[in-house]
Amino acid sequence: MNEKKLTPKSENYSDWYNQLVQRAELADYAPVRGCMVVRPYGWALWENIQDELDSRFKATGHVNAAFPLFIPMSFLEKEKEHVEGFSPELAVVTIGGGSELEEPLIVRPTSETIIGYMYSKWIQSYRDLPLLINQWANVVRWEMRTRLFLRTLEFYWQEGHTAHATQEEAEEETLRMLSIYTDFARNEAAVPVIPGRKSESEKFAGAVHSYTIEAMMGDKKALQAGTSHNLGQNFARAFDIDYLDENNTLQHCWTTSWGLSTRFIGAIIMTHGDDQGLVLPPHLAPTQVVIVPIFRKDDEKDKVMAVVDRVKSELNNIRVKVDDRTEVTPGFKFNHWELRGVPLRLEIGPKDVAKNSVALARRDIPGREGKSFVPQEGIAQTVAEMLETIQANMLTKATQFRDKHIFEPKDYDEFKEIINNDGWCYVWWKPSIENEAKIKEETKATLRCIPLDQPGGKGKCIFSGEEAEQKVYFAKAY
Amino acid sequence: MNEKKLTPKSENYSDWYNQLVQRAELADYAPVRGCMVVRPYGWALWENIQDELDSRFKATGHVNAAFPLFIPMSFLEKEKEHVEGFSPELAVVTIGGGSELEEPLIVRPTSETIIGYMYSKWIQSYRDLPLLINQWANVVRWEMRTRLFLRTLEFYWQEGHTAHATQEEAEEETLRMLSIYTDFARNEAAVPVIPGRKSESEKFAGAVHSYTIEAMMGDKKALQAGTSHNLGQNFARAFDIDYLDENNTLQHCWTTSWGLSTRFIGAIIMTHGDDQGLVLPPHLAPTQVVIVPIFRKDDEKDKVMAVVDRVKSELNNIRVKVDDRTEVTPGFKFNHWELRGVPLRLEIGPKDVAKNSVALARRDIPGREGKSFVPQEGIAQTVAEMLETIQANMLTKATQFRDKHIFEPKDYDEFKEIINNDGWCYVWWKPSIENEAKIKEETKATLRCIPLDQPGGKGKCIFSGEEAEQKVYFAKAY
Repeated sequence: MNEKKLTPKSENYSDWYNQLVQRAELADYAPVRGCMVVRPYGWALWENIQDELDSRFKATGHVNAAFPLFIPMSFLEKEKEHVEGFSPELAVVTIGGGSELEEPLIVRPTSETIIGYMYSKWIQSYRDLPLLINQWANVVRWEMRTRLFLRTLEFYWQEGHTAHATQEEAEEETLRMLSIYTDFARNEAAVPVIPGRKSESEKFAGAVHSYTIEAMMGDKKALQAGTSHNLGQNFARAFDIDYLDENNTLQHCWTTSWGLSTRFIGAIIMTHGDDQGLVLPPHLAPTQVVIVPIFRKDDEKDKVMAVVDRVKSELNNIRVKVDDRTEVTPGFKFNHWELRGVPLRLEIGPKDVAKNSVALARRDIPGREGKSFVPQEGIAQTVAEMLETIQANMLTKATQFRDKHIFEPKDYDEFKEIINNDGWCYVWWKPSIENEAKIKEETKATLRCIPLDQPGGKGKCIFSGEEAEQKVYFAKAY
Repeated sequence: MNEKKLTPKSENYSDWYNQLVQRAELADYAPVRGCMVVRPYGWALWENIQDELDSRFKATGHVNAAFPLFIPMSFLEKEKEHVEGFSPELAVVTIGGGSELEEPLIVRPTSETIIGYMYSKWIQSYRDLPLLINQWANVVRWEMRTRLFLRTLEFYWQEGHTAHATQEEAEEETLRMLSIYTDFARNEAAVPVIPGRKSESEKFAGAVHSYTIEAMMGDKKALQAGTSHNLGQNFARAFDIDYLDENNTLQHCWTTSWGLSTRFIGAIIMTHGDDQGLVLPPHLAPTQVVIVPIFRKDDEKDKVMAVVDRVKSELNNIRVKVDDRTEVTPGFKFNHWELRGVPLRLEIGPKDVAKNSVALARRDIPGREGKSFVPQEGIAQTVAEMLETIQANMLTKATQFRDKHIFEPKDYDEFKEIINNDGWCYVWWKPSIENEAKIKEETKATLRCIPLDQPGGKGKCIFSGEEAEQKVYFAKAY
């Protein structure tokens, strides 16, 4: 019954993570290597993520559709960088209905190619543009080293694919979606991501340039939590996605793609989790409030449960669970729901009945400091406000943690030390694929992003010492 | 621009269906044989179907999860009937990450086996039961003859999988889900399905018995629109899904599974569609109301658009679209939205502005008979009521059509005639796998279901003449 203590984060972060994902019943390993089962609690979290993103997509004019799982191998080969990037990771169907297939089918690792093919059929004139479609789908990438949510053979995501008449509109779309991801991460998941551009070596296979939101995990490693790509005319050329403009001239479209996956659940776990377990942001938590009734004797039970039922019914706009199990103790229940990261616990016992009060325990502030007693009267408003307080506090705490672990080393030696032990480096950088590769080899750190928010001015590149015009983040990453 | 007339239903039903699905932009053929792309309009319809079903599942205690796409080939072989039923239809992954796999993986055709494997890990005691999980997923069956929505290699569905402590509870669950499907079909899709049990030869591969909802299409053929299976202990035995009961004795669980797929979109199209195109039930229609502004001169435009905007804003609880395109005529727009089955059209022109009225045109009643003029005042309520009237009328019409084409033949000769030309046969039947097979061979008709609603008493079996205790439906089917 999950009573064992988690390995503390400080002792072994990776063990902590793996134990937590399974014990909190977010996900489990499947009997196929590297595949996961997302369990009901994890899927409920994903459904809340989906709702928040989907409503933002629809509010900005996007519609959903569904494109096939299988892609002819030849499609991938039409875009040179794309096939180079993805071919080592493919799952291939070679047999269908008992017979060998003439052309093998790949299981989609992403859908630019097959969607590009369909767009070339659907788009004729400038009146058909922009075409703004998203799909919620499963994709497969044959990864060798896998971890639940962070990197699995099959994962779940949304992938947006849009086509535009001009380069400017495509760039605007790419940035619009990045800002939707940023807004979602900060305001719903309390994950203070840094939006920026990927370097040439880190961009998506087939993109002109890629944007990313980068998050700092509890072990100070970076996690790429969502990406938005400007594909230029690369896929339009490869798949003849053309339109007649207002002057009746045939033009290639400009396309984009953008995605956020179940990996984001890993970001939530590692941004907020502590040694007791998950800490879920109230906006996304499947259960926002758990009520634990406390009583010893049967005559106490009726009185307590009457208040529990009334409080529960008053909290009808909130996702509430009453844990009325009789076979386990209140202490067991506290641990159970703390492990699962429920943001707020309400305890109601005989004393609370007598005093018309309720005991609150905040998940984001462990121990006594997070406990308070509030009147039963007005409980719906008290709880709603408390949930917003918790949500805001989680963002503040995560932002402080992040900022405390971002450093500006004075030279490359200090850079290496910081990367090794302390966190991220924020440094002046003169773009160079070679120098990036050297840093990666020497420190395992990668250029996470060139943040959109730039200080201006110029500085000395941390590696080459040459004059540089931008500051960037380097870090070890998931 | 889709201006071509559809082939009339009466001329060639199959051409009518194929043209309609594509011209209404519900779906399109994918570049992989037998696969489909569900286009945004079709997917929006599916999302509305999902919402209606999902809320019913959750209200009855079910939760969603996600199980892997890939299943080890050996899993399928653990349940004898199951593997026999599905092995001719499998897509098989033999290569992953560039290497031949030691054990080939099948792409799930359904998930009883892999879910059974996980349940055996998760279920220990009677306290873990019932386990009530559903997933929304894509599945693959390698069909040779495919048609959009009705039968495609990949399709989308929900599959519920539950485990119970007793046979009675499993049977209760199986019937509960059948009644949810029946309720959904009738009250949201206006499809008057007949719930019943499948015969031995038509049941799911691996089930003890299967239930179905059967719908009559516009060509009088039957379509199986959803199924619910009592799996007994077959999968529990094959996968060791066991629990300790209250006496600490190890018992096999009793399991069920039930599914409804994008095939249901085909049922909606073929239940309600007419020679002008789709007719969508208001409860599920992606666009419930289209407003077409009508004006010739610019001075008319402003006045008309002011009313259009006001009416639109009053209809804020309804899914409304304003078709304000200037490059096409109102007549073109009428055809456009009729083809797409929008339940109600509002026309607003200069005369309506002058008279404070609006012209309504019902999609379910074509021509003049379905037109009316109503005051602008109270338009929200008028429209809401009209949509309910349309919804109810669609169910009535479909039920009348169905009942008009169900016959009770006096002998097998008459049975054959009816099956060939007129519709379904409702007959006394003494169960016999052999006789069912003979009827299928001679008439192409299959036993669609043994309806739950039985007349009682006894009669003479339509085929064998022996005494029979149940009445059943026979029909040609999709």
